[in-house]
Amino acid sequence: MAEIICGKQAIREALRAGRRVRRVLVAGSARETAPLRDLLALAAERHVPVQTVERAALDRLADHHQGVAAEVEPYPYCDFAELLRATRAATPPLYLVLDSLQDPQNFGTLLRTAAAVGVTGVVLPEHHAVGVTPGVRRASAGAVEHLRVARVTNLVRALEQLKAAGVWIVGLDAHAAKPYDAVDACGPTAVVVGSEEQGLRRLVRECCDFLVAVPMEPALDSLNAAVAGSLVLYAYYRQRHRTG
Amino acid sequence: MAEIICGKQAIREALRAGRRVRRVLVAGSARETAPLRDLLALAAERHVPVQTVERAALDRLADHHQGVAAEVEPYPYCDFAELLRATRAATPPLYLVLDSLQDPQNFGTLLRTAAAVGVTGVVLPEHHAVGVTPGVRRASAGAVEHLRVARVTNLVRALEQLKAAGVWIVGLDAHAAKPYDAVDACGPTAVVVGSEEQGLRRLVRECCDFLVAVPMEPALDSLNAAVAGSLVLYAYYRQRHRTG
Repeated sequence: MAEIICGKQAIREALRAGRRVRRVLVAGSARETAPLRDLLALAAERHVPVQTVERAALDRLADHHQGVAAEVEPYPYCDFAELLRATRAATPPLYLVLDSLQDPQNFGTLLRTAAAVGVTGVVLPEHHAVGVTPGVRRASAGAVEHLRVARVTNLVRALEQLKAAGVWIVGLDAHAAKPYDAVDACGPTAVVVGSEEQGLRRLVRECCDFLVAVPMEPALDSLNAAVAGSLVLYAYYRQRHRTG
Repeated sequence: MAEIICGKQAIREALRAGRRVRRVLVAGSARETAPLRDLLALAAERHVPVQTVERAALDRLADHHQGVAAEVEPYPYCDFAELLRATRAATPPLYLVLDSLQDPQNFGTLLRTAAAVGVTGVVLPEHHAVGVTPGVRRASAGAVEHLRVARVTNLVRALEQLKAAGVWIVGLDAHAAKPYDAVDACGPTAVVVGSEEQGLRRLVRECCDFLVAVPMEPALDSLNAAVAGSLVLYAYYRQRHRTG
Protein backbone atom coordinates (compact mmCIF):
# COMPACT_ATOMS: atom_id res chain seq x y z
CA MET A 1 0.00 0.00 0.00
CA ALA A 2 1.66 3.23 -1.14
CA GLU A 3 1.65 6.45 0.87
CA ILE A 4 1.76 10.05 -0.28
CA ILE A 5 4.45 12.35 1.11
CA CYS A 6 4.67 16.06 0.48
CA GLY A 7 7.23 18.74 1.13
CA LYS A 8 10.17 19.18 -1.24
CA GLN A 9 12.74 18.48 1.48
CA ALA A 10 10.95 15.29 2.57
CA ILE A 11 10.76 14.01 -1.03
CA ARG A 12 14.35 14.99 -1.77
CA GLU A 13 15.69 13.14 1.28
CA ALA A 14 13.61 10.03 0.46
CA LEU A 15 15.21 10.01 -3.01
CA ARG A 16 18.71 10.73 -1.65
CA ALA A 17 18.46 7.99 0.98
CA GLY A 18 17.43 5.47 -1.70
CA ARG A 19 13.98 4.87 -0.19
CA ARG A 20 11.54 3.28 -2.64
CA VAL A 21 9.74 6.14 -4.40
CA ARG A 22 7.23 4.92 -7.00
CA ARG A 23 6.65 8.23 -8.72
CA VAL A 24 6.78 11.97 -8.22
CA LEU A 25 3.63 13.96 -9.01
CA VAL A 26 3.95 17.60 -10.04
CA ALA A 27 1.08 20.04 -10.55
CA GLY A 28 1.14 21.40 -14.12
CA SER A 29 0.79 24.85 -12.59
CA ALA A 30 3.72 24.45 -10.10
CA ARG A 31 6.19 27.33 -10.25
CA GLU A 32 9.56 26.13 -11.59
CA THR A 33 11.76 27.16 -8.66
CA ALA A 34 15.35 26.03 -8.16
CA PRO A 35 14.41 23.54 -5.39
CA LEU A 36 11.75 21.99 -7.66
CA ARG A 37 14.21 21.72 -10.59
CA ASP A 38 16.78 20.07 -8.29
CA LEU A 39 14.15 17.65 -7.05
CA LEU A 40 13.12 16.64 -10.57
CA ALA A 41 16.75 16.22 -11.63
CA LEU A 42 17.35 13.97 -8.62
CA ALA A 43 14.25 11.90 -9.51
CA ALA A 44 15.52 11.47 -13.08
CA GLU A 45 18.94 10.41 -11.78
CA ARG A 46 17.30 7.77 -9.58
CA HIS A 47 15.08 6.58 -12.48
CA VAL A 48 11.90 7.57 -10.64
CA PRO A 49 9.07 8.51 -13.04
CA VAL A 50 7.77 12.08 -12.82
CA GLN A 51 4.17 12.67 -13.79
CA THR A 52 2.49 16.02 -14.40
CA VAL A 53 -1.03 16.17 -12.97
CA GLU A 54 -3.81 18.70 -12.43
CA ARG A 55 -3.48 20.68 -9.21
CA ALA A 56 -6.96 19.46 -8.24
CA ALA A 57 -5.69 15.87 -8.37
CA LEU A 58 -2.91 16.74 -5.90
CA ASP A 59 -5.43 18.56 -3.71
CA ARG A 60 -7.35 15.30 -3.40
CA LEU A 61 -4.20 13.42 -2.34
CA ALA A 62 -2.77 15.83 0.22
CA ASP A 63 -3.03 19.15 2.04
CA HIS A 64 -0.41 21.89 1.71
CA HIS A 65 1.42 20.07 -1.06
CA GLN A 66 3.00 23.16 -2.68
CA GLY A 67 2.54 21.60 -6.10
CA VAL A 68 4.53 18.42 -5.61
CA ALA A 69 4.02 15.03 -3.94
CA ALA A 70 5.52 11.56 -4.09
CA GLU A 71 4.07 8.09 -3.95
CA VAL A 72 6.30 6.05 -1.64
CA GLU A 73 6.39 2.72 0.16
CA PRO A 74 5.41 2.92 3.85
CA TYR A 75 8.36 3.84 6.08
CA PRO A 76 10.79 0.89 6.28
CA TYR A 77 11.27 0.22 10.01
CA CYS A 78 14.28 -1.85 11.00
CA ASP A 79 14.40 -4.70 13.50
CA PHE A 80 15.18 -3.90 17.10
CA ALA A 81 17.67 -6.81 17.01
CA GLU A 82 19.55 -4.93 14.29
CA LEU A 83 19.72 -1.81 16.49
CA LEU A 84 20.94 -3.92 19.40
CA ARG A 85 23.75 -5.29 17.26
CA ALA A 86 24.72 -1.71 16.38
CA THR A 87 25.43 -1.15 20.08
CA ARG A 88 28.72 -2.95 19.62
CA ALA A 89 29.68 -1.16 16.41
CA ALA A 90 28.93 2.45 17.40
CA THR A 91 31.47 4.11 19.68
CA PRO A 92 29.72 4.92 21.89
CA PRO A 93 26.10 4.38 20.76
CA LEU A 94 23.37 6.94 21.42
CA TYR A 95 19.73 5.89 21.15
CA LEU A 96 16.57 7.94 21.21
CA VAL A 97 13.61 6.14 22.77
CA LEU A 98 10.17 7.72 22.46
CA ASP A 99 7.47 6.80 24.94
CA SER A 100 3.93 7.76 23.82
CA LEU A 101 4.75 10.87 21.81
CA GLN A 102 1.44 11.84 20.20
CA ASP A 103 2.03 14.97 18.15
CA PRO A 104 3.32 14.24 14.61
CA GLN A 105 4.89 17.71 14.37
CA ASN A 106 6.88 17.27 17.59
CA PHE A 107 7.77 13.74 16.64
CA GLY A 108 9.13 14.82 13.23
CA THR A 109 11.02 17.74 14.75
CA LEU A 110 12.70 15.50 17.32
CA LEU A 111 13.62 12.93 14.65
CA ARG A 112 15.27 15.75 12.69
CA THR A 113 17.45 16.54 15.71
CA ALA A 114 18.16 12.82 16.19
CA ALA A 115 19.51 12.67 12.63
CA ALA A 116 21.49 15.88 13.17
CA VAL A 117 23.37 14.34 16.11
CA GLY A 118 23.73 11.01 14.27
CA VAL A 119 21.93 8.72 16.72
CA THR A 120 22.58 5.00 16.39
CA GLY A 121 18.85 4.35 16.22
CA VAL A 122 15.36 5.32 17.39
CA VAL A 123 13.01 3.01 19.33
CA LEU A 124 9.22 3.47 19.42
CA PRO A 125 6.45 1.49 21.07
CA GLU A 126 4.10 -0.08 18.51
CA HIS A 127 1.09 1.07 20.51
CA HIS A 128 0.44 4.31 22.48
CA ALA A 129 2.48 6.38 20.04
CA VAL A 130 2.41 7.83 16.58
CA GLY A 131 4.43 5.92 13.96
CA VAL A 132 6.44 7.32 11.08
CA THR A 133 3.45 8.57 9.08
CA PRO A 134 3.71 10.71 5.91
CA GLY A 135 3.08 13.75 8.14
CA VAL A 136 6.00 12.81 10.39
CA ARG A 137 8.27 12.22 7.38
CA ARG A 138 7.40 15.71 6.23
CA ALA A 139 7.73 17.32 9.68
CA SER A 140 11.22 15.82 9.96
CA ALA A 141 12.08 17.61 6.67
CA GLY A 142 13.11 14.18 5.38
CA ALA A 143 15.64 13.59 8.16
CA VAL A 144 13.88 10.37 9.16
CA GLU A 145 14.97 8.82 5.84
CA HIS A 146 18.54 8.80 7.19
CA LEU A 147 17.61 7.14 10.49
CA ARG A 148 17.13 3.58 11.66
CA VAL A 149 13.79 3.39 13.50
CA ALA A 150 12.54 0.22 15.22
CA ARG A 151 9.08 -0.39 16.66
CA VAL A 152 8.76 -2.73 19.62
CA THR A 153 5.68 -4.29 21.22
CA ASN A 154 7.07 -3.94 24.75
CA LEU A 155 9.13 -0.82 25.38
CA VAL A 156 10.19 -1.82 28.91
CA ARG A 157 11.55 -5.13 27.62
CA ALA A 158 13.48 -3.31 24.89
CA LEU A 159 14.99 -0.99 27.52
CA GLU A 160 15.98 -4.01 29.63
CA GLN A 161 17.70 -5.51 26.57
CA LEU A 162 19.60 -2.28 25.95
CA LYS A 163 20.62 -2.25 29.63
CA ALA A 164 21.84 -5.84 29.37
CA ALA A 165 23.96 -4.73 26.40
CA GLY A 166 25.64 -2.12 28.62
CA VAL A 167 23.59 0.93 27.61
CA TRP A 168 22.71 3.56 30.24
CA ILE A 169 19.00 4.47 30.22
CA VAL A 170 18.45 8.19 30.84
CA GLY A 171 14.89 9.45 31.20
CA LEU A 172 13.75 13.03 30.70
CA ASP A 173 11.53 13.99 33.64
CA ALA A 174 10.44 17.49 34.56
CA HIS A 175 10.77 16.74 38.29
CA ALA A 176 14.28 15.26 38.23
CA ALA A 177 16.93 17.00 40.31
CA LYS A 178 19.83 16.36 37.90
CA PRO A 179 20.20 18.91 35.07
CA TYR A 180 20.36 17.44 31.55
CA ASP A 181 23.79 18.94 30.92
CA ALA A 182 25.40 17.60 34.09
CA VAL A 183 25.71 14.08 32.67
CA ASP A 184 28.76 12.06 31.75
CA ALA A 185 28.08 11.65 28.05
CA CYS A 186 30.87 9.22 27.27
CA GLY A 187 29.15 5.87 27.91
CA PRO A 188 26.64 4.05 25.69
CA THR A 189 23.34 5.84 26.30
CA ALA A 190 19.64 5.72 25.47
CA VAL A 191 17.70 8.96 26.01
CA VAL A 192 14.01 8.34 26.77
CA VAL A 193 11.49 11.12 26.03
CA GLY A 194 7.84 10.90 27.10
CA SER A 195 4.59 12.36 25.87
CA GLU A 196 3.78 16.08 25.78
CA GLU A 197 1.13 15.83 28.49
CA GLN A 198 2.05 12.96 30.76
CA GLY A 199 5.80 12.56 30.42
CA LEU A 200 7.15 9.03 30.88
CA ARG A 201 4.83 6.20 31.83
CA ARG A 202 5.53 4.81 35.30
CA LEU A 203 7.01 1.46 34.25
CA VAL A 204 9.23 3.17 31.69
CA ARG A 205 10.41 5.73 34.24
CA GLU A 206 11.21 2.99 36.75
CA CYS A 207 13.35 1.29 34.14
CA CYS A 208 15.66 4.32 33.79
CA ASP A 209 19.12 4.29 35.38
CA PHE A 210 18.65 7.96 36.17
CA LEU A 211 16.42 10.91 35.33
CA VAL A 212 17.37 14.37 34.11
CA ALA A 213 15.41 17.62 33.81
CA VAL A 214 15.79 20.76 31.74
CA PRO A 215 15.99 23.62 34.28
CA MET A 216 13.80 26.66 33.64
CA GLU A 217 12.42 29.82 35.22
CA PRO A 218 9.69 29.30 37.85
CA ALA A 219 6.98 31.00 35.73
CA LEU A 220 7.03 28.06 33.30
CA ASP A 221 6.43 24.41 34.06
CA SER A 222 7.38 22.70 30.83
CA LEU A 223 8.99 23.03 27.43
CA ASN A 224 7.85 21.72 24.08
CA ALA A 225 8.68 17.95 24.12
CA ALA A 226 10.70 18.14 20.90
CA VAL A 227 12.74 21.06 22.24
CA ALA A 228 13.40 19.34 25.57
CA GLY A 229 14.44 16.12 23.84
CA SER A 230 16.64 18.06 21.42
CA LEU A 231 18.43 19.82 24.30
CA VAL A 232 19.28 16.46 25.90
CA LEU A 233 20.47 14.91 22.61
CA TYR A 234 22.65 17.94 21.93
CA ALA A 235 24.10 17.87 25.45
CA TYR A 236 25.38 14.36 24.64
CA TYR A 237 26.48 15.21 21.13
CA ARG A 238 28.40 18.33 22.07
CA GLN A 239 30.06 16.82 25.11
CA ARG A 240 31.25 13.85 23.07
CA HIS A 241 32.30 16.05 20.20
CA ARG A 242 34.26 18.49 22.33
CA THR A 243 35.98 15.89 24.49
CA GLY A 244 36.34 13.19 21.84
CA MET B 1 -11.67 43.62 18.13
CA ALA B 2 -11.61 40.46 20.26
CA GLU B 3 -9.74 37.30 19.30
CA ILE B 4 -10.47 33.68 20.12
CA ILE B 5 -7.77 31.56 21.74
CA CYS B 6 -8.00 27.84 22.37
CA GLY B 7 -5.99 25.31 24.29
CA LYS B 8 -6.43 24.96 28.05
CA GLN B 9 -2.81 25.88 28.79
CA ALA B 10 -2.98 28.99 26.60
CA ILE B 11 -6.20 30.16 28.27
CA ARG B 12 -4.91 29.36 31.76
CA GLU B 13 -1.73 31.36 31.23
CA ALA B 14 -3.66 34.32 29.79
CA LEU B 15 -5.76 34.34 32.98
CA ARG B 16 -2.75 33.82 35.26
CA ALA B 17 -0.79 36.62 33.60
CA GLY B 18 -3.70 39.01 34.05
CA ARG B 19 -4.27 39.48 30.30
CA ARG B 20 -7.70 40.87 29.46
CA VAL B 21 -9.98 37.89 28.94
CA ARG B 22 -13.57 38.92 28.13
CA ARG B 23 -15.17 35.54 28.63
CA VAL B 24 -14.51 31.83 28.61
CA LEU B 25 -16.72 29.66 26.41
CA VAL B 26 -17.26 26.00 27.32
CA ALA B 27 -19.08 23.42 25.24
CA GLY B 28 -22.03 21.95 27.17
CA SER B 29 -20.71 18.52 26.20
CA ALA B 30 -17.11 19.15 27.38
CA ARG B 31 -15.78 16.43 29.64
CA GLU B 32 -15.21 17.74 33.19
CA THR B 33 -11.52 16.90 33.54
CA ALA B 34 -9.28 18.23 36.30
CA PRO B 35 -7.52 20.74 33.97
CA LEU B 36 -10.92 22.09 32.85
CA ARG B 37 -12.15 22.40 36.47
CA ASP B 38 -8.94 24.25 37.40
CA LEU B 39 -9.40 26.55 34.44
CA LEU B 40 -12.97 27.43 35.37
CA ALA B 41 -11.99 28.00 39.01
CA LEU B 42 -9.24 30.37 37.87
CA ALA B 43 -11.70 32.25 35.62
CA ALA B 44 -14.08 32.65 38.57
CA GLU B 45 -11.26 33.91 40.78
CA ARG B 46 -10.37 36.53 38.13
CA HIS B 47 -14.04 37.53 37.72
CA VAL B 48 -14.09 36.42 34.09
CA PRO B 49 -17.57 35.27 32.97
CA VAL B 50 -17.89 31.65 31.87
CA GLN B 51 -20.58 30.84 29.32
CA THR B 52 -21.81 27.39 28.32
CA VAL B 53 -22.43 27.10 24.57
CA GLU B 54 -23.31 24.45 22.01
CA ARG B 55 -20.28 22.56 20.66
CA ALA B 56 -21.33 23.63 17.15
CA ALA B 57 -20.96 27.28 18.20
CA LEU B 58 -17.36 26.60 19.28
CA ASP B 59 -16.72 24.73 16.04
CA ARG B 60 -17.62 27.88 14.15
CA LEU B 61 -15.18 29.96 16.23
CA ALA B 62 -12.12 27.70 16.18
CA ASP B 63 -10.55 24.42 15.09
CA HIS B 64 -9.32 21.79 17.56
CA HIS B 65 -10.81 23.63 20.53
CA GLN B 66 -11.21 20.59 22.83
CA GLY B 67 -14.43 22.02 24.17
CA VAL B 68 -13.14 25.33 25.52
CA ALA B 69 -12.17 28.73 24.10
CA ALA B 70 -11.67 32.28 25.36
CA GLU B 71 -12.48 35.66 23.92
CA VAL B 72 -9.45 37.87 24.56
CA GLU B 73 -8.05 41.24 23.59
CA PRO B 74 -5.42 41.08 20.83
CA TYR B 75 -1.94 40.37 22.18
CA PRO B 76 -0.64 43.45 24.06
CA TYR B 77 2.73 44.26 22.49
CA CYS B 78 5.05 46.50 24.47
CA ASP B 79 7.10 49.43 23.17
CA PHE B 80 10.61 48.77 21.98
CA ALA B 81 11.69 51.79 24.06
CA GLU B 82 10.44 49.94 27.15
CA LEU B 83 12.57 46.91 26.24
CA LEU B 84 15.58 49.17 25.68
CA ARG B 85 15.14 50.63 29.14
CA ALA B 86 15.09 47.09 30.55
CA THR B 87 18.64 46.67 29.24
CA ARG B 88 19.86 48.63 32.22
CA ALA B 89 17.73 46.81 34.77
CA ALA B 90 18.37 43.18 33.73
CA THR B 91 21.71 41.71 34.75
CA PRO B 92 22.71 40.88 32.13
CA PRO B 93 19.84 41.21 29.62
CA LEU B 94 19.12 38.52 27.03
CA TYR B 95 16.94 39.36 24.04
CA LEU B 96 15.44 37.14 21.38
CA VAL B 97 15.14 38.84 17.99
CA LEU B 98 13.15 37.06 15.27
CA ASP B 99 13.81 37.92 11.65
CA SER B 100 11.05 36.76 9.25
CA LEU B 101 9.93 33.63 11.09
CA GLN B 102 6.88 32.42 9.14
CA ASP B 103 5.61 29.28 10.81
CA PRO B 104 3.24 29.95 13.76
CA GLN B 105 4.04 26.58 15.32
CA ASN B 106 7.80 27.21 15.31
CA PHE B 107 7.27 30.76 16.47
CA GLY B 108 5.13 29.65 19.42
CA THR B 109 7.56 26.88 20.33
CA LEU B 110 10.51 29.27 20.35
CA LEU B 111 8.58 31.81 22.46
CA ARG B 112 7.93 29.04 24.98
CA THR B 113 11.67 28.45 25.26
CA ALA B 114 12.26 32.21 25.50
CA ALA B 115 9.92 32.32 28.51
CA ALA B 116 11.59 29.24 30.01
CA VAL B 117 14.99 30.98 30.03
CA GLY B 118 13.44 34.26 31.20
CA VAL B 119 14.46 36.53 28.31
CA THR B 120 14.33 40.26 28.93
CA GLY B 121 12.20 40.70 25.82
CA VAL B 122 11.42 39.60 22.27
CA VAL B 123 11.74 41.81 19.19
CA LEU B 124 9.86 41.17 15.92
CA PRO B 125 9.71 43.05 12.63
CA GLU B 126 6.22 44.41 11.95
CA HIS B 127 6.41 43.16 8.37
CA HIS B 128 7.90 39.94 6.87
CA ALA B 129 7.02 37.94 9.95
CA VAL B 130 4.11 36.39 11.74
CA GLY B 131 2.83 38.31 14.78
CA VAL B 132 1.49 36.94 18.05
CA THR B 133 -1.70 35.48 16.58
CA PRO B 134 -4.14 33.28 18.53
CA GLY B 135 -2.41 30.26 16.91
CA VAL B 136 0.97 31.43 18.21
CA ARG B 137 -0.44 32.03 21.69
CA ARG B 138 -1.69 28.49 21.67
CA ALA B 139 1.50 26.99 20.17
CA SER B 140 3.48 28.66 22.96
CA ALA B 141 1.23 26.85 25.46
CA GLY B 142 0.49 30.28 26.91
CA ALA B 143 4.16 31.08 27.60
CA VAL B 144 3.92 34.23 25.47
CA GLU B 145 1.58 35.74 28.10
CA HIS B 146 4.59 35.99 30.43
CA LEU B 147 6.83 37.69 27.85
CA ARG B 148 7.38 41.26 26.73
CA VAL B 149 7.19 41.32 22.92
CA ALA B 150 7.84 44.47 20.86
CA ARG B 151 7.23 44.92 17.16
CA VAL B 152 9.46 47.34 15.25
CA THR B 153 9.15 48.77 11.75
CA ASN B 154 12.88 48.60 11.08
CA LEU B 155 14.66 45.62 12.59
CA VAL B 156 18.16 46.77 11.62
CA ARG B 157 17.61 50.10 13.34
CA ALA B 158 16.40 48.31 16.47
CA LEU B 159 19.53 46.15 16.45
CA GLU B 160 21.67 49.29 16.11
CA GLN B 161 19.91 50.79 19.11
CA LEU B 162 20.54 47.65 21.16
CA LYS B 163 24.20 47.78 20.11
CA ALA B 164 24.43 51.42 21.16
CA ALA B 165 23.06 50.34 24.56
CA GLY B 166 25.95 47.89 24.92
CA VAL B 167 24.19 44.71 23.79
CA TRP B 168 26.12 42.11 21.74
CA ILE B 169 24.21 41.02 18.63
CA VAL B 170 24.64 37.29 17.94
CA GLY B 171 23.16 35.86 14.75
CA LEU B 172 22.32 32.20 14.16
CA ASP B 173 23.72 31.23 10.75
CA ALA B 174 24.12 27.68 9.45
CA HIS B 175 27.42 28.58 7.76
CA ALA B 176 29.12 30.23 10.73
CA ALA B 177 32.38 28.69 11.96
CA LYS B 178 31.80 29.43 15.66
CA PRO B 179 29.73 26.82 17.55
CA TYR B 180 26.74 28.18 19.46
CA ASP B 181 28.07 26.85 22.77
CA ALA B 182 31.54 28.39 22.45
CA VAL B 183 30.28 31.85 23.36
CA ASP B 184 30.99 34.02 26.37
CA ALA B 185 27.46 34.28 27.72
CA CYS B 186 28.13 36.84 30.42
CA GLY B 187 27.60 40.09 28.51
CA PRO B 188 24.30 41.71 27.49
CA THR B 189 23.21 39.75 24.41
CA ALA B 190 20.56 39.66 21.69
CA VAL B 191 20.18 36.33 19.86
CA VAL B 192 18.87 36.78 16.30
CA VAL B 193 17.06 33.85 14.63
CA GLY B 194 16.06 33.91 10.95
CA SER B 195 13.38 32.23 8.88
CA GLU B 196 13.08 28.49 8.34
CA GLU B 197 13.98 28.67 4.65
CA GLN B 198 16.24 31.66 4.18
CA GLY B 199 17.90 32.24 7.53
CA LEU B 200 18.82 35.84 8.32
CA ARG B 201 18.25 38.57 5.76
CA ARG B 202 21.51 40.11 4.49
CA LEU B 203 21.21 43.49 6.21
CA VAL B 204 20.28 41.83 9.49
CA ARG B 205 23.20 39.41 9.23
CA GLU B 206 25.61 42.26 8.53
CA CYS B 207 24.43 43.98 11.65
CA CYS B 208 25.48 41.10 13.90
CA ASP B 209 28.64 41.35 16.00
CA PHE B 210 29.27 37.68 15.32
CA LEU B 211 27.54 34.60 13.95
CA VAL B 212 27.19 31.16 15.50
CA ALA B 213 26.08 27.81 14.09
CA VAL B 214 24.70 24.63 15.60
CA PRO B 215 27.12 21.86 14.53
CA MET B 216 25.60 18.69 13.08
CA GLU B 217 26.38 15.53 11.16
CA PRO B 218 27.17 15.98 7.45
CA ALA B 219 24.05 14.06 6.29
CA LEU B 220 21.85 16.94 7.53
CA ASP B 221 21.99 20.57 6.51
CA SER B 222 19.64 22.23 8.97
CA LEU B 223 17.59 21.88 12.13
CA ASN B 224 14.07 23.03 12.86
CA ALA B 225 14.34 26.81 13.44
CA ALA B 226 12.66 26.65 16.86
CA VAL B 227 15.03 23.87 17.99
CA ALA B 228 18.11 25.72 16.73
CA GLY B 229 17.01 28.95 18.44
CA SER B 230 16.21 27.05 21.64
CA LEU B 231 19.69 25.49 21.71
CA VAL B 232 21.30 28.92 21.49
CA LEU B 233 19.04 30.44 24.17
CA TYR B 234 19.76 27.51 26.49
CA ALA B 235 23.51 27.77 25.87
CA TYR B 236 23.30 31.31 27.28
CA TYR B 237 20.92 30.41 30.08
CA ARG B 238 22.92 27.45 31.32
CA GLN B 239 26.27 29.14 31.10
CA ARG B 240 24.99 32.12 33.09
CA HIS B 241 23.21 29.88 35.55
CA ARG B 242 26.15 27.60 36.19
CA THR B 243 28.77 30.35 36.47
CA GLY B 244 26.49 32.85 38.21
